[in-house]
Amino acid sequence: MDPLDEVLEGHHATAYVAVGSSLDGDIRYLTQFRVSDPIIFIKKKGAPGAIVVSSMEYERAQRESIAQVISRNEAGFFEYLKEDPNNRPRATARMIASLSGGEVVVPANFPLGLARELEAFCQVTVDRDAVQGMRAVKSSWEIAQIRKVQNAAEAAMAIAIGLIERSRPSQGILILDGHSLTSERVKVAIHTRLIEQGCTARDTIVSCGTDSALPHHTGAGPLLPHEPIIIDLFPQDEATGYYADMTRTVCHGEPSPDIVEMYWAVKEAKKITANAIRDGVSGADLHLKVVQFLSDQGYESNSQGFMHNLGHGIGLDVHEKPVLGPGGDLLKPGNVFTLEPGLYYHEKGGVRLEDVGCIVNGGFEQFTKFEERLVV
Amino acid sequence: MDPLDEVLEGHHATAYVAVGSSLDGDIRYLTQFRVSDPIIFIKKKGAPGAIVVSSMEYERAQRESIAQVISRNEAGFFEYLKEDPNNRPRATARMIASLSGGEVVVPANFPLGLARELEAFCQVTVDRDAVQGMRAVKSSWEIAQIRKVQNAAEAAMAIAIGLIERSRPSQGILILDGHSLTSERVKVAIHTRLIEQGCTARDTIVSCGTDSALPHHTGAGPLLPHEPIIIDLFPQDEATGYYADMTRTVCHGEPSPDIVEMYWAVKEAKKITANAIRDGVSGADLHLKVVQFLSDQGYESNSQGFMHNLGHGIGLDVHEKPVLGPGGDLLKPGNVFTLEPGLYYHEKGGVRLEDVGCIVNGGFEQFTKFEERLVV
Repeated sequence: MDPLDEVLEGHHATAYVAVGSSLDGDIRYLTQFRVSDPIIFIKKKGAPGAIVVSSMEYERAQRESIAQVISRNEAGFFEYLKEDPNNRPRATARMIASLSGGEVVVPANFPLGLARELEAFCQVTVDRDAVQGMRAVKSSWEIAQIRKVQNAAEAAMAIAIGLIERSRPSQGILILDGHSLTSERVKVAIHTRLIEQGCTARDTIVSCGTDSALPHHTGAGPLLPHEPIIIDLFPQDEATGYYADMTRTVCHGEPSPDIVEMYWAVKEAKKITANAIRDGVSGADLHLKVVQFLSDQGYESNSQGFMHNLGHGIGLDVHEKPVLGPGGDLLKPGNVFTLEPGLYYHEKGGVRLEDVGCIVNGGFEQFTKFEERLVV
Repeated sequence: MDPLDEVLEGHHATAYVAVGSSLDGDIRYLTQFRVSDPIIFIKKKGAPGAIVVSSMEYERAQRESIAQVISRNEAGFFEYLKEDPNNRPRATARMIASLSGGEVVVPANFPLGLARELEAFCQVTVDRDAVQGMRAVKSSWEIAQIRKVQNAAEAAMAIAIGLIERSRPSQGILILDGHSLTSERVKVAIHTRLIEQGCTARDTIVSCGTDSALPHHTGAGPLLPHEPIIIDLFPQDEATGYYADMTRTVCHGEPSPDIVEMYWAVKEAKKITANAIRDGVSGADLHLKVVQFLSDQGYESNSQGFMHNLGHGIGLDVHEKPVLGPGGDLLKPGNVFTLEPGLYYHEKGGVRLEDVGCIVNGGFEQFTKFEERLVV
């Protein structure tokens, strides 16, 4: 049975409805249509999924989407709009209600404004997990897409680390080809290599020294010798929408003994976790295992030390189900997720290593092949 | 008076609440904080805006955001979560209600799942236009940011058209440096040039021949001589989040007489519109003016011909207020928007030209300086 039909049956509803552009992972998953303005997805029980699009997108949607395509015109939108020309949400709600023909189920991120209008015509029930749960278990096609983006990420990581490796320290900063090797310069090189492979990335991190102690500091200015440099990139394949995610920490020349120890602990924590992964172990337990191991090494897990989740599912969103952290889900075959232990101290800097992989045959199959080498 | 305070007074509410990552234009506008996971924005009447972030983002948010920063811990989130550890939305709602201290106003895109939880604690009112309206009138700082991205877009457009200009036709396709000049190759060149300028772009269009008749077809494969090539790019400045948007149509060698006529009509339509722009004219009227002009030239405006809106506001979203199309808003000083008439026919291909500019001193000040030249 179609999983959305099961959801509808569970709620005694007639249609599942979602709204968004393809930036919304659910919408991209359900439609496989790349579109920058919001479209409406409607799946009635027993029928295939359908999307309602503007006439401008109609023919392209028919070519590209796996969903059936209905134009707003066909769906009566402009007739409904005539009744109250200044209230487009009302007309949209009437159209959805008419296409659905009864009670609807929507995801948790369904826009409240539209829901309020829709409630005038039909009952609206939120199902938090329906599509999120479907998305968490990847098909072999999806796994192939994520592996492909991961390969692109590794090619870009190699470029980034190569620049650091080829640089030379001078007056306290790294110099390459006569100019300061900055975070910005490394990011341009990463993004250029990604683009050549059909991928884009935003918020890429190349942070150095004390900046690296803030996990999401994207980095700025000259890179320094003997200081940890965290490189974290999460590109998206433009054509398919799938993400990869990886992090390496490197240092030009010997870092402080603290950083060497932190690196060892993070690397070991990741290895121990990867070996402990089985069907049915929970993301919460894996996270706790890392907290415990790092605690045994003398590192805390609060506002310093290990201060974020162990990992996260990845697919059409960078962060999706399953959660590998407090409250985290039971892991299942087909889950694709990251493992990214890290340690952060204001006065010392940060260390993070991140791989991506999948549960197959009861264990963890790691997609990331990139070497782990602190000193370059 | 702070415009959000006015909104709160109008609704007799105590706090304005929004949720999202900085991909959400409202959140980026209100916080000036770049963050990839959702944060909560709360502004109580008479108080400055505040954001609630995870401890991992706390210090970075304090450095980077214009909002006050509260950690989830300080806001009691983990205490609330203990009461029902599997219901994070409930704990989030309790936290929001406690911070707000009364009735809340939220934007139309506020997530329904969280709203339903929040309604257990306080009244939730949707205000569709509050922040959208604020965002539609740009400050001089914002205008400077958009102009900067527009300059980056023009540099990338010059690269793209340069490649087409330097190519040579051979066996029905364009060849450059011994290889087919494809849509993909031109897009890599565009994106690389944008990245060098700190900008990223997605869904860039380089479409040729009959593909160009579908306004949002992103294009694929070899570019052809004597066929219209539509180049449409809308980069975002990574640091500030502001967008630009521009389109040119070019042809390597002479196109068909139909395309020449369509190009003239589109160019003329844009010029006539730009000259007609005044404070207080409506986006609806400007759109109708173009429909009328194109109709006089023998072009329809339905599923072929001129098949989309004349333009759209631009800022922290590519498409925002004001609307220049049916139902479009009255234009005001400080509005920044595009003018992008186009004509599309399946058997002939498409033509679109798009500029961006602003209403100042009662007229239209065009930011786009890039030449309009069909044959290259």
